Amino acid sequence: MSPIVHRRNLDFLLYEALDFDAVLAAPPFATYDRADIAAVLDSVQTIAEEQFLPCAADLDAHEPHFCDGAVRVDPRVRRALTACADAGLFSAGFDHDVGGLRLPMTVTVLINGILAAANIGIANYQLLTVAAANMLATFGTDEQKSLYLPPMLAGRWFGTMCLSEPQAGSSLSDIRTRAEPLEGRLHRITGTKMWISCGDHDLTENIVHMVLARRPDGPPGVKGLSLFIVPKYRLNPDGTQGPFNNIALAGLNHKMGQRGTTNCLLNFGEDGDCLGYLLGEAHQGLTCMFHMMNEARIGVGANSVMSALAGYLCALDYARTRPQGRSLRNKDATTPQIPIIDHADVRRMLLAQKAAVEGGLALSCYCTLLVDRIAATVDEGQRRDLSLLLELLTPIAKSWPAEHCLEANKLSIQVLGGYGYTRDFPVERHYRDNRLNAIHEGTQAIHGLDLLGRKVRMADGWAMDLLVLEIGQTQDAAEADGSFAAEVDALHAALAHLGRATRAALACTDTERATANATLYLDAFGQITVAWLWLRQAVAASRALARDGASSGPDADFYQGKIAACRYFFRYELPHALPLLGLVERLDRTCLDMTPAQFLGC
Amino acid sequence: MSPIVHRRNLDFLLYEALDFDAVLAAPPFATYDRADIAAVLDSVQTIAEEQFLPCAADLDAHEPHFCDGAVRVDPRVRRALTACADAGLFSAGFDHDVGGLRLPMTVTVLINGILAAANIGIANYQLLTVAAANMLATFGTDEQKSLYLPPMLAGRWFGTMCLSEPQAGSSLSDIRTRAEPLEGRLHRITGTKMWISCGDHDLTENIVHMVLARRPDGPPGVKGLSLFIVPKYRLNPDGTQGPFNNIALAGLNHKMGQRGTTNCLLNFGEDGDCLGYLLGEAHQGLTCMFHMMNEARIGVGANSVMSALAGYLCALDYARTRPQGRSLRNKDATTPQIPIIDHADVRRMLLAQKAAVEGGLALSCYCTLLVDRIAATVDEGQRRDLSLLLELLTPIAKSWPAEHCLEANKLSIQVLGGYGYTRDFPVERHYRDNRLNAIHEGTQAIHGLDLLGRKVRMADGWAMDLLVLEIGQTQDAAEADGSFAAEVDALHAALAHLGRATRAALACTDTERATANATLYLDAFGQITVAWLWLRQAVAASRALARDGASSGPDADFYQGKIAACRYFFRYELPHALPLLGLVERLDRTCLDMTPAQFLGC
Repeated sequence: MSPIVHRRNLDFLLYEALDFDAVLAAPPFATYDRADIAAVLDSVQTIAEEQFLPCAADLDAHEPHFCDGAVRVDPRVRRALTACADAGLFSAGFDHDVGGLRLPMTVTVLINGILAAANIGIANYQLLTVAAANMLATFGTDEQKSLYLPPMLAGRWFGTMCLSEPQAGSSLSDIRTRAEPLEGRLHRITGTKMWISCGDHDLTENIVHMVLARRPDGPPGVKGLSLFIVPKYRLNPDGTQGPFNNIALAGLNHKMGQRGTTNCLLNFGEDGDCLGYLLGEAHQGLTCMFHMMNEARIGVGANSVMSALAGYLCALDYARTRPQGRSLRNKDATTPQIPIIDHADVRRMLLAQKAAVEGGLALSCYCTLLVDRIAATVDEGQRRDLSLLLELLTPIAKSWPAEHCLEANKLSIQVLGGYGYTRDFPVERHYRDNRLNAIHEGTQAIHGLDLLGRKVRMADGWAMDLLVLEIGQTQDAAEADGSFAAEVDALHAALAHLGRATRAALACTDTERATANATLYLDAFGQITVAWLWLRQAVAASRALARDGASSGPDADFYQGKIAACRYFFRYELPHALPLLGLVERLDRTCLDMTPAQFLGC
Repeated sequence: MSPIVHRRNLDFLLYEALDFDAVLAAPPFATYDRADIAAVLDSVQTIAEEQFLPCAADLDAHEPHFCDGAVRVDPRVRRALTACADAGLFSAGFDHDVGGLRLPMTVTVLINGILAAANIGIANYQLLTVAAANMLATFGTDEQKSLYLPPMLAGRWFGTMCLSEPQAGSSLSDIRTRAEPLEGRLHRITGTKMWISCGDHDLTENIVHMVLARRPDGPPGVKGLSLFIVPKYRLNPDGTQGPFNNIALAGLNHKMGQRGTTNCLLNFGEDGDCLGYLLGEAHQGLTCMFHMMNEARIGVGANSVMSALAGYLCALDYARTRPQGRSLRNKDATTPQIPIIDHADVRRMLLAQKAAVEGGLALSCYCTLLVDRIAATVDEGQRRDLSLLLELLTPIAKSWPAEHCLEANKLSIQVLGGYGYTRDFPVERHYRDNRLNAIHEGTQAIHGLDLLGRKVRMADGWAMDLLVLEIGQTQDAAEADGSFAAEVDALHAALAHLGRATRAALACTDTERATANATLYLDAFGQITVAWLWLRQAVAASRALARDGASSGPDADFYQGKIAACRYFFRYELPHALPLLGLVERLDRTCLDMTPAQFLGC
């Protein structure tokens, strides 16, 4: 059993619970079949297990450090990423015309996810480079593409995203970095960027920063932001590495987790000209950036799931083999101890992890399949609908795992007890790694406001209606199956409650009050969405059991486990969504009304 | 404002919400008045802020390490603990006849708590030494007491608790360490102990281990365990340090948090005789140990609260001063940013932390007051009732903060965003430190089984009845106040649900099924208990507001904040207890029925 991948579950999600076959049948991807996808995932798993996993604990213990004027990263990071590049993983999702494999996003997200389960500290370099290259491929001029894409897709140059500044994290309106137009697309960049993952390192010849900055001729706020390509080293006309572009490393941030990835404070143009090249249109920077951010958000959600998966697999393995205690019915201390998986509470903690991990992965895959279906469809109306659904679910795909898969990591520590609290096992590292995911790529609060303040209002609520229709199909199938009456009723009631809460918020003209509990709304919305995806998995499993006719053996166990996890989710997890919706529906203002002075009385 | 102490709240809890005055009026403690207690806490706060706090981040970053045959601990740890010893903090709770101050446990737990808020890595040395000395004072012979107590209470020797072994953590039945009787109380000890906090270090001349071991003449299981005093260095007849007692440090555990405290694997008697001295009666070791463990559990719960308090105060300070974003009503990016405390979701996260911290502290103080009232009462029946209530609430006092104050620490990171995820702020350290508290001194599962399997059955359920009577007094007072109708109703309904769930579990003859959801029962029981203590605080605050007649100013803010936090708890937190009780009431067997093979299907 791999400590980072559960392929049986992946295949089930793609081909039984969801309809990945339809994506593979569509023109952009029709060159691939199931065996091709399996071969890709096999090779990724090999790289992850051989190159990423063995150094994960070491990289966590020994962060990249500043030495002799440069950041020193463990050489194993370079080797691991070279293996990825050699296997074509940087370019896997790109079009054939730029040398890519044009694999569906469902596969490329899994590629990075498998790497992340092994060692997220390394996987981030690939994730950000691909995201930056993606933006370049979409908005770049032919010249920009020809200069930057080949070395990035070959993994010779890495990329970054430079949005935040010390005084502007969640509030992008307040970005101050300046871009002074020089000639054509050429600008002089000055300013300071904070929290730049992979912002500096000694892994590649060059680093291509995607920088949000403000031209003097733009309006204030986010509408005055433009996007710039700012390489660490300028390029000679032939594309080779030129002189230093005056991007100074002002500091390394020392994080709680994801410590293998450098995270930097960067000064642009402090001691000399720093040149940047406008990407896309002036003052359209945020629009371009969102093209990347939305996909990155799904990727972050998926990686949060994968951190929890790695923790779950470790906890499960431990629980099966660690003897401790006896059945409550057996008071004879001379009999052998039993494996802890035989204790009800350990099973509960493992079921909770399974529900979070496999529910979260279903959510991620459902969203990436939307992206792939959008790419595959030729029907304009269908594309619009799929896009609306994707926009609606993106905040969920990012934030639900960040909350609930972190909880899963907490439980995997608990299963191991004292051992789980030590650095001898990976579970505490995954927990620390995962804690970042509720913060970066938009905090939970930002996504709550996005969902309740914007997404549910889109197209007069049509996105919500589309989701309800999708869920309705699963409810119909579950009713036809006959074994899920309780789940169908519970989902129906939860959806009705969600509808009431949504209408109450939309009807409230005081925006602050309407969204005062938006983060809780986001959580409840996610719980209901994942409950639906669990029911969808359970129906698929029930169908498979009926088809196979087997009541024992690995396949029967697998499908029965799916049904049990679905029931667990509906009985143990979904009920917690309802009080949250009650607060939203009542427009509760307990938090809004609390004054700063009342917290301490001083 | 102190970063670790909120004295206004402490005073409110002790003298307004609870009745600490009555304890101070009773004979054992009547030499003390409010001013004396304040002076003690003042001096502790000074030591904590001056000696514990400044090195907290450093100790976390640089763990004690093994070097030249010994564990090296940062010298600042010794200085900080010497300051405690000089201030009489090791002996603070002990009787005058052994040189103690005979302060109430309510005060001694706060003493260690304040130290823990500053730097739990150091505070643990004091906590364990006091706990070991306490056991010695209770069960030791006059000779044992005269040999060991003076140097321990002077802080010259430290103590430990040696229960766990590599193969026996939660299952104390399986302890294998052997004690071979030699003469009188003298035994030869052989075996291996795991997870020994403060198990070795270079801080003191000697270390006094309290070791659970098995004599050859005892029955199997916990009934065959005896307790031994096993010093690192044997004592000469005059009490001075004699030869090494053959306790070998076999390894240091490297933990996720609480890294300033050494945690050891110890081999007893591996390379020569290791002598131990029976403490108390043979085969009564666990009973003796529980005397200590019950108080230690309340202390662990209190320190979990204090870790969350330190995080909350940091988050609150940050939220008041960090500008980010604007009101949702203001789209003008040229206006100044507002402090993040003005965002509804930040207030929610701060209220959640306040509710956890001040609710948890009320719970701790209520329990230590029970201990003090037991010590103060001369009425046998009252002592019995108070003891039952204490036994019932001990698993709650330990486990509720371990869960909910950890959640508070998670939110304090969230308030700080990216900064909170770095080691430049203490919030991530407190989060890591607090993660241990659900594991040591009995896991959540152990306490759940203790509560539902044992405690609620005590004296035919009379302990539960006593708690309901206590809660009833608060409900009466709240009804009389008139402003808490919703809270009174909600608490009433929750208690009724708790009663139904309890009866259902007690009526089930299949122990495994009855307790399959015991950990969730524990959580729900805790939520209801803390809801009650919040209502009690709110009633006291309402009374104070009516008395003072002021509607503004620090005192009015403080009391209004208490009422708001109570309402928050009832609206946002308590509702989550009800689905948990439903699972217990229905004797849900979803987790119990899950087979090991169903988790993965392989």
